[in-house]
Amino acid sequence: MVADVLSRSALPMKNSNAMMDRSPEDVSGHFQTVPLPESQLSFPGQPYSVSVLKVGYCLPQTDGTFKADGTITLIEGPKTILVDTGGPWDRDFLLMSLKERGLEPGDVNLVVGTHGHSDHIGNLGLFPTAKLIVGCDISKGDIYHPNTLAEGHVHCVDEHISVVPSPGHTGQDVSVQVKGTLAGTVLVAGDLFECCSDEDSWRDLSMNTQKQEVSRREALRTADVIIPGHGHPFRVIRKLR
Amino acid sequence: MVADVLSRSALPMKNSNAMMDRSPEDVSGHFQTVPLPESQLSFPGQPYSVSVLKVGYCLPQTDGTFKADGTITLIEGPKTILVDTGGPWDRDFLLMSLKERGLEPGDVNLVVGTHGHSDHIGNLGLFPTAKLIVGCDISKGDIYHPNTLAEGHVHCVDEHISVVPSPGHTGQDVSVQVKGTLAGTVLVAGDLFECCSDEDSWRDLSMNTQKQEVSRREALRTADVIIPGHGHPFRVIRKLR
Repeated sequence: MVADVLSRSALPMKNSNAMMDRSPEDVSGHFQTVPLPESQLSFPGQPYSVSVLKVGYCLPQTDGTFKADGTITLIEGPKTILVDTGGPWDRDFLLMSLKERGLEPGDVNLVVGTHGHSDHIGNLGLFPTAKLIVGCDISKGDIYHPNTLAEGHVHCVDEHISVVPSPGHTGQDVSVQVKGTLAGTVLVAGDLFECCSDEDSWRDLSMNTQKQEVSRREALRTADVIIPGHGHPFRVIRKLR
Repeated sequence: MVADVLSRSALPMKNSNAMMDRSPEDVSGHFQTVPLPESQLSFPGQPYSVSVLKVGYCLPQTDGTFKADGTITLIEGPKTILVDTGGPWDRDFLLMSLKERGLEPGDVNLVVGTHGHSDHIGNLGLFPTAKLIVGCDISKGDIYHPNTLAEGHVHCVDEHISVVPSPGHTGQDVSVQVKGTLAGTVLVAGDLFECCSDEDSWRDLSMNTQKQEVSRREALRTADVIIPGHGHPFRVIRKLR
């Protein structure tokens, strides 16, 4: 969320993706983004599987406010990784969702906050002992580790998982790339993408549209499935020129 | 914290403010920043009093990492306002500090996160029902309220308390201005200021030094006491030209 934007534009419902809506990326003939069935929230794989615990939303209300929350995603495999934690009001939901999978907060090895907006980083406090990557900061407890995310370099968690700088929405966004699912490479993208068909909205929510355009193109070039910050997962189809 | 910077510069200890250190603001002859005794963490007033619950720090370690935490500040009066929540590891400390003052998390009416770095917004989840201002976003539960903080406009909480845009360290920083303490106007500034004598460090930690310079000058022009993000409170003395 960016309050600035909310004050000056009435956004349409962002998760009302019409099937096979075409984004401007189509114009180039290289990429096409295609909604997946709304029930498809799990992407099994080896060694890592990806599950969307909560689909983010952004819904304009009749009184001018917006009802909004960020997508919460769990990556399970050799490491247990949570990408975004929703808003503070998601605390009980998040604890319950983890419990349903046999997990306690202490079982989560790495928590990634894609960026520092309240609908994404509201429950970091549940994971005081996990490794933490919030935007471009990497820490464990109060020890912060030098890294080069802010300089545009990828941070490899292991050979399957990478934290990828994807600035634009804020100055310090990151996405999490998971290789080797049955659906191919999955990118948990935070608000790099609002939803599948966000050409009417993402620029208004961006601090730097030029940077975000570059980050988006790189995501579309490399991911098979994108999990956006405020909508359902969608598929990327790359066409040959 | 900004990991980028940590990777390229070894910062000196930031909370080792020598008494009467002079910042470059002196050069203009208009402002002088003066450390207060380290024991002075409370600023009583009517109707609002300000208490620093935890003094933030940023200490370079011998292995190249940094031990860091953000300052946590409580404002008590007609409303109970918490400014920054420390890192996730501060959860128990924060709960205990509130309890010592006879407060439960549910008693806090407003939580302000000065910016979205993990050492400042680690415990938002303790306050699911409070009004929340994180950077330029204002929300209560998952309802986000249009506002003009990102356009540079002050958000008045009441006649004594204002949330003031103070960008630079990130693109979406805010500070909290408290009028009417016995020490005058107190500004809880997040990382707009690292500490009293931060001329050796703040630019390296800034996403936009030009904007931050403007924000800092406005702070020095209007505040009598500044509570910085990683050091002890300090006094601002304005000189006549």
